[in-house]
Amino acid sequence: MDAATQTAGPQVSFDTSPDRYRHWTLGIDGPIATLAMDVREDAGLSPDYKLKLNSYDLGVDIELADAIQRIRFEHPEVHAVVITSLKERVFCAGANIFMLRGSSHAWKVNFCKFTNETRLAIEDASEHSGLKFLAALNGICAGGGYELALACDEILLVDDGNSAVSLPETPLLGVLPGTGGLTRVVDKRKVRRDLADVFGTVAEGIKGKRAVEWRLVDAVYPTSQFKARVAARARELAAKSDRPARGPGITLTPLKPNVTHDRVTYSAVDVEIDRDKRVATVTVTGPSGHLPESGDAIQALGDQFWPLRAFRELDDALLRLRLAEPLIGTVAIKTRGDRGAMLAVDELLFAQKDHWLAREIVHFMKRTLKRMDLTSRTFFALITPGSCFAGSLFELALAADRSYMLDDQEQDNTIALSKMNGGPLKMSNGLTRLETRFLAQPEQVDRVLERDGAFDPQDALEAGLVSFAPDELDWDDEVRLAIESRAALSPDALTGMEANLRFAGPETMETKIFGRLTAWQNWIFVRPNAVGPKGALTAYGSQSRPEFDFNRT
Amino acid sequence: MDAATQTAGPQVSFDTSPDRYRHWTLGIDGPIATLAMDVREDAGLSPDYKLKLNSYDLGVDIELADAIQRIRFEHPEVHAVVITSLKERVFCAGANIFMLRGSSHAWKVNFCKFTNETRLAIEDASEHSGLKFLAALNGICAGGGYELALACDEILLVDDGNSAVSLPETPLLGVLPGTGGLTRVVDKRKVRRDLADVFGTVAEGIKGKRAVEWRLVDAVYPTSQFKARVAARARELAAKSDRPARGPGITLTPLKPNVTHDRVTYSAVDVEIDRDKRVATVTVTGPSGHLPESGDAIQALGDQFWPLRAFRELDDALLRLRLAEPLIGTVAIKTRGDRGAMLAVDELLFAQKDHWLAREIVHFMKRTLKRMDLTSRTFFALITPGSCFAGSLFELALAADRSYMLDDQEQDNTIALSKMNGGPLKMSNGLTRLETRFLAQPEQVDRVLERDGAFDPQDALEAGLVSFAPDELDWDDEVRLAIESRAALSPDALTGMEANLRFAGPETMETKIFGRLTAWQNWIFVRPNAVGPKGALTAYGSQSRPEFDFNRT
Repeated sequence: MDAATQTAGPQVSFDTSPDRYRHWTLGIDGPIATLAMDVREDAGLSPDYKLKLNSYDLGVDIELADAIQRIRFEHPEVHAVVITSLKERVFCAGANIFMLRGSSHAWKVNFCKFTNETRLAIEDASEHSGLKFLAALNGICAGGGYELALACDEILLVDDGNSAVSLPETPLLGVLPGTGGLTRVVDKRKVRRDLADVFGTVAEGIKGKRAVEWRLVDAVYPTSQFKARVAARARELAAKSDRPARGPGITLTPLKPNVTHDRVTYSAVDVEIDRDKRVATVTVTGPSGHLPESGDAIQALGDQFWPLRAFRELDDALLRLRLAEPLIGTVAIKTRGDRGAMLAVDELLFAQKDHWLAREIVHFMKRTLKRMDLTSRTFFALITPGSCFAGSLFELALAADRSYMLDDQEQDNTIALSKMNGGPLKMSNGLTRLETRFLAQPEQVDRVLERDGAFDPQDALEAGLVSFAPDELDWDDEVRLAIESRAALSPDALTGMEANLRFAGPETMETKIFGRLTAWQNWIFVRPNAVGPKGALTAYGSQSRPEFDFNRT
Repeated sequence: MDAATQTAGPQVSFDTSPDRYRHWTLGIDGPIATLAMDVREDAGLSPDYKLKLNSYDLGVDIELADAIQRIRFEHPEVHAVVITSLKERVFCAGANIFMLRGSSHAWKVNFCKFTNETRLAIEDASEHSGLKFLAALNGICAGGGYELALACDEILLVDDGNSAVSLPETPLLGVLPGTGGLTRVVDKRKVRRDLADVFGTVAEGIKGKRAVEWRLVDAVYPTSQFKARVAARARELAAKSDRPARGPGITLTPLKPNVTHDRVTYSAVDVEIDRDKRVATVTVTGPSGHLPESGDAIQALGDQFWPLRAFRELDDALLRLRLAEPLIGTVAIKTRGDRGAMLAVDELLFAQKDHWLAREIVHFMKRTLKRMDLTSRTFFALITPGSCFAGSLFELALAADRSYMLDDQEQDNTIALSKMNGGPLKMSNGLTRLETRFLAQPEQVDRVLERDGAFDPQDALEAGLVSFAPDELDWDDEVRLAIESRAALSPDALTGMEANLRFAGPETMETKIFGRLTAWQNWIFVRPNAVGPKGALTAYGSQSRPEFDFNRT
């Protein structure tokens, strides 16, 4: 079994910025940003491995995620992003194998989840923010490197007789191209399944014209033309964007939470850790004070505008829980504040949805809520007097596995919906959380959204918006028992159960990646054929060849 | 690692019939069949466990699958099936836990796969054959028992103050309700996800009115009314059927293959086992002789009509490979025979598709091909002169991971399509294999279907219908190398890769069960929290309580 320390892996901070990047350079030239990979071999998160050939670990991906995020918020004038490499003849060798080999199972799973979320954030920016991505593969592009390219809108490969794209995970390591690779090959790029089968088993990959014919890349160009072709295509992609013609954007300043042994305190988010009970309590404080009245006024507030500030903090808190607190199995979600102010913020965001910054904020809120859906911890929402489960913040209750609402005759306790619950904050399955909740009664979605006014506990229970509404006599026992009994269950079974129950309804490429592909990868990541003493991942780079148990399962 | 012997589990035959059932009784009363579970405790496949309280092992499920199949073919006059129990106060306690505990990982996975296929065959009969299923839960109904009920069209539960439905896998065993349970609860019955979360963690389950309110069952009735209500509802369901008003059906006679150490020979299917190379060669011989000219003439041939005979043999061969030959990683698929005769059979089946028996035969062919899609072995189709890859048999090449077609100038070698490739034999994802193959060029599906005449190797390659068309000089080396290099790869990575590449395109409830739910269950089935020395599955029924590693992954 994983030891807690081993599971937690190295200490990680998600706080970075372009001037501190060790592995990427971000250059901006008018509407084109160039994000160039130049991984520092000796700057991995652990000294146990060298990040050769632009291979990456979580630290490299944290910088990539930060760069994508900053381009969206800080550089609205950027319309297309070229992702390339500064290394000669190497684009990216993929996730570092020695890092994977030395990592605990839980670390591998969390690493893959975050890199998946980063790839999906690229696709989200393309689909929703008018930011197009061009992978300019100026050298060999293997494994996770090709998975990064797959997340881009188009892939151009240099035709130098040597540079190939490849997914060598199965033939070399006995694992899967799990960062969306298999799914994107057949579902996004629609590579024919038999050709995908060949591609997925040929360690050296596919290059040149064949890579185009098989739909693995969009075009190949000789070295002499490559740069010019990339630049020309980037300009064409940029021309299609609906982003502002010029800046400025806003600056994303560091979050700087106050961190103690059992508490992380941000401005609007507080995380209390109870390691004995294996429970964390996350409390989000709703907006207050003066409400901006226009997109420009929102922009003047910058990253201090409540929705952006609070959801950035929540996003960071979720990532901390995943990596730093693996033993916390249950998260109690609370809110507090002024429901009216929350609804007014939602109203403003919805009214300003065509303003570039409001759009970015809403999509970021959406991505943060998806991060919660994909966090393998139990979430129970606790709705008590003084809480602020309204509109966007009510999505936290809808994202939770259960919600408990105190029905106390003596105290007011209500929830409320807004237009933000009706569309902008869709889950990975392409439905809103209300649509997913009311699969059996689709008409109930409009009914609850059309209601003018708040829901008291009995209304909320009857409308199906909360799971339970205990009265003041039962509340303490019922909530305590729910949390205690959850803590006694197998954490693996809970992870599997929640991953199945949270995503009812249709599947999308995104849910296929996390459901089907990730679940199989996780299985393979614990099988002796990959990680046992003679497994392929263990044997890689050593003198010995892997020895497999050839029983097919 | 699994030892080969442990992996293979007990010797199993899929040949049974109602007069030999040990665990079920099949009674037929006009349009209503009653399939009653009465499991013999001491008649499990292994003497290591007792099948108490109508718990089941693979042997029980083989009889269930046989009964459903026989009702479809032998009793067209049956319009509704009541599934119930002959035990007092017990419907079914689910899969036998001591059987699960004593089984190898591979056996558990294969057991769950087959039971899943049986549940899906029930739903297939309801959707496509006008055969409706009513689960009459006359007592406690737990785990796999409730999963069986979920596969029925309706669920009636006795309201006796004691009988509940439950999915106790997570709280009691630390595993998932993996036979479609979690998926069907939220996707088929559309139970609200928070209520499903509670249901999935409460070992004692939910009974009475609450079970109806939560949509877990369709109705509850007091003991005094239960039988009459079940009978009345069964008559109502039967009245909606479009099956024939009366019989006779046809008889499914035993297959009786000739089995030697390294060969299984049926009338139209031959399986050669090369354990050294870990390769099997399956050869299907196409139809020949006199073609019946009507539905009645098909019926006169009964189970000797080629499509039914050949696909029953193929189905049995696939099940044998799964259970008895776990070390065989690659299956070469060959055919031989008269392509014209095959196309004539397809023409007949298509023309007679409204005849009850032709309909049953086509859906059975479809289910057999799905069984192949879901078999975790590599399939390579080898198309050589004299082969019969036409129409329905070309689906074998489309189901294969790759296809190789010999392009020999001196010998005729062609493939051909029929209307059977255009719709009747859909995959689990709801698409035909041609549609799945040509996701990138949907227009190509009609183009190849409309072609009048056969495809020679170059035509087939150009049309995208085969993977490779080596000439006679390259053929031997290329095929040998493909098979040899496949055999060298990690079998786990191949299982995961194939499970992802075979199901491009949309997901359905069926693919969600095998993709998402099964993959998570397989992961949990190898985790120490379930199967380790202190895991929940290991500890169940002993004095000791499970001890979990509480790190969440």
